[in-house]
Amino acid sequence: MTKEIILSGMRPTGRLHLGNYLGAMKNWIAMQDDYNCYFEIADWHALMSDYGDPGSVTRNSRDMLCVWLAVGLDPEKCVIFRQSDVPEHLELFFIFSTITPLGWLERCPTYKEALVNNDKKDIRNYAFLGYPSLQAADIALYRADKVPVGKDQLPHLELTREVIRRFNHLYNTDVMTEPGEVLTKVQKLKGTDGRKMSKSYGNTIYLTEEKASLKKKVNKMVTDPARIRVDDKGHPEVCSVFSYQKIFNQNEAEKINNECKSGTIGCVKCKKKLLNNLNDFIQPIREKYLYYKENTKKVNKILEDGNRRAKKTASENLKLFRKEMNYG
Amino acid sequence: MTKEIILSGMRPTGRLHLGNYLGAMKNWIAMQDDYNCYFEIADWHALMSDYGDPGSVTRNSRDMLCVWLAVGLDPEKCVIFRQSDVPEHLELFFIFSTITPLGWLERCPTYKEALVNNDKKDIRNYAFLGYPSLQAADIALYRADKVPVGKDQLPHLELTREVIRRFNHLYNTDVMTEPGEVLTKVQKLKGTDGRKMSKSYGNTIYLTEEKASLKKKVNKMVTDPARIRVDDKGHPEVCSVFSYQKIFNQNEAEKINNECKSGTIGCVKCKKKLLNNLNDFIQPIREKYLYYKENTKKVNKILEDGNRRAKKTASENLKLFRKEMNYG
Repeated sequence: MTKEIILSGMRPTGRLHLGNYLGAMKNWIAMQDDYNCYFEIADWHALMSDYGDPGSVTRNSRDMLCVWLAVGLDPEKCVIFRQSDVPEHLELFFIFSTITPLGWLERCPTYKEALVNNDKKDIRNYAFLGYPSLQAADIALYRADKVPVGKDQLPHLELTREVIRRFNHLYNTDVMTEPGEVLTKVQKLKGTDGRKMSKSYGNTIYLTEEKASLKKKVNKMVTDPARIRVDDKGHPEVCSVFSYQKIFNQNEAEKINNECKSGTIGCVKCKKKLLNNLNDFIQPIREKYLYYKENTKKVNKILEDGNRRAKKTASENLKLFRKEMNYG
Repeated sequence: MTKEIILSGMRPTGRLHLGNYLGAMKNWIAMQDDYNCYFEIADWHALMSDYGDPGSVTRNSRDMLCVWLAVGLDPEKCVIFRQSDVPEHLELFFIFSTITPLGWLERCPTYKEALVNNDKKDIRNYAFLGYPSLQAADIALYRADKVPVGKDQLPHLELTREVIRRFNHLYNTDVMTEPGEVLTKVQKLKGTDGRKMSKSYGNTIYLTEEKASLKKKVNKMVTDPARIRVDDKGHPEVCSVFSYQKIFNQNEAEKINNECKSGTIGCVKCKKKLLNNLNDFIQPIREKYLYYKENTKKVNKILEDGNRRAKKTASENLKLFRKEMNYG
């Protein structure tokens, strides 16, 4: 039986943190055995907002690749490639651009949200409006059967399906696959201050965090504000440290929960346990990451291999699509 | 002394007529000795409006190339290439898209006009809004010094200059050339019915018009409506036949002008003279056109050569631009 095809990707806009891992890469790693996976370094997407500093996109692309490899994406099992190294993406994007009504893009809820929320970068440029069309091209180019998405990304995927349906309808074909979704179980992780995890709040823990800064960050984590003395009874359900224990210290979480509620474990001791567990999780990732950062040739080869495999599929499929369009 | 670089192009949206020749190709032919010319078959631009029938864009691209060669564009002197065969166009287009504010495009006067005038094709798609950015990429990609334009296209060229200035400013460079214009002397040719020449009015004469249909079209041309009898005094200044005589029968135009005014030449005779002269002009073009239509291999080779030369310049320049952006 042939495996179903999965396409997913990430914008290289900065250092990856624990939230990125739980929200995407953890699911990817679980999927690479069961699916034929394509994982995209979406650098054209990143340039839509980071055109003011293209050098950062270059660096972040490289860095992201090293982290992906460090957390366990296996280039023997999946295809890892960089979007801008496969020119077919922009070709299919252009074709989709001609059949995407402006209104579909202007009314896209995530577009309107982004315009409101993005106060640091000016994204009122022409490229950014086309975000969902480029995403549709990314997916269609590999004839992906499934796309892993969180609930909040469903409107984008629906737009992808609409563009694909329009293509198939206009050119009287069924050559393009309408992708289904794999609704991913995302373990939501708050920031170290209890707010939404966000680089702009400075409340993230990076996947490659150094031990010293990890210690500082854990020690500064916000706990139950009602707990002042060590033997005060705590409320783990409002404590950000405990929310991390549940994910990164699953074996002890139940015990800590009880001890906190009965006031028999103090915040300092609790944080120490978390720190140890977090470090156990992060240390091997950080070491592998540093290994890949140093082994430039090896990483180059992995990327070149992935690009070549992606390009092969992409160019074959694009040829097929153009044939159906009668565009030669 | 190195020659200045010229970039111009045409959208392959249909059969080329005398108006296309006078408005563009005639000037191109005159320029190919003095400039380093790049002439583009702008098929991506055509797809923006003709996505409903991509096959027509393919056919018209081929046909246009044969006409260009037939009227005298010389592949030994200039570079003739097809836009979609040089992927660098879409890459630079994307880069420009990220730095082009949406408002610049939405407020472009030619965009607003097109939306009003284009009642047959639905051009309210995402790609069409980006028309001026793609045009800017076409020009910048060859670092063109000059662009031949009619007065009506000056707003587009101004937008090209603005995008290029923005690129140079953002990336603190002067790598991109701000193109000047060669204001072309356009001999305005009306349609055979005296209205604006337009395919949708059915009042055009094609550059490869068959002799029989040419005869029909000339015979049906609208003359001075006040002239009923052969010896009525005519008003050549309102006669569409005379407007053609001035261009295609320059030697006799003055004489015909006088004879018409004095009523000593009839419309039938006048039209016969025009027909002969038009046919003298069109026949060699038609013959060469048919020659190229039949010699597929020769035309393929010309296009492959042109594409290769265009791609060489384009990829070198794009590499240079990306280096200045620090985008690798």
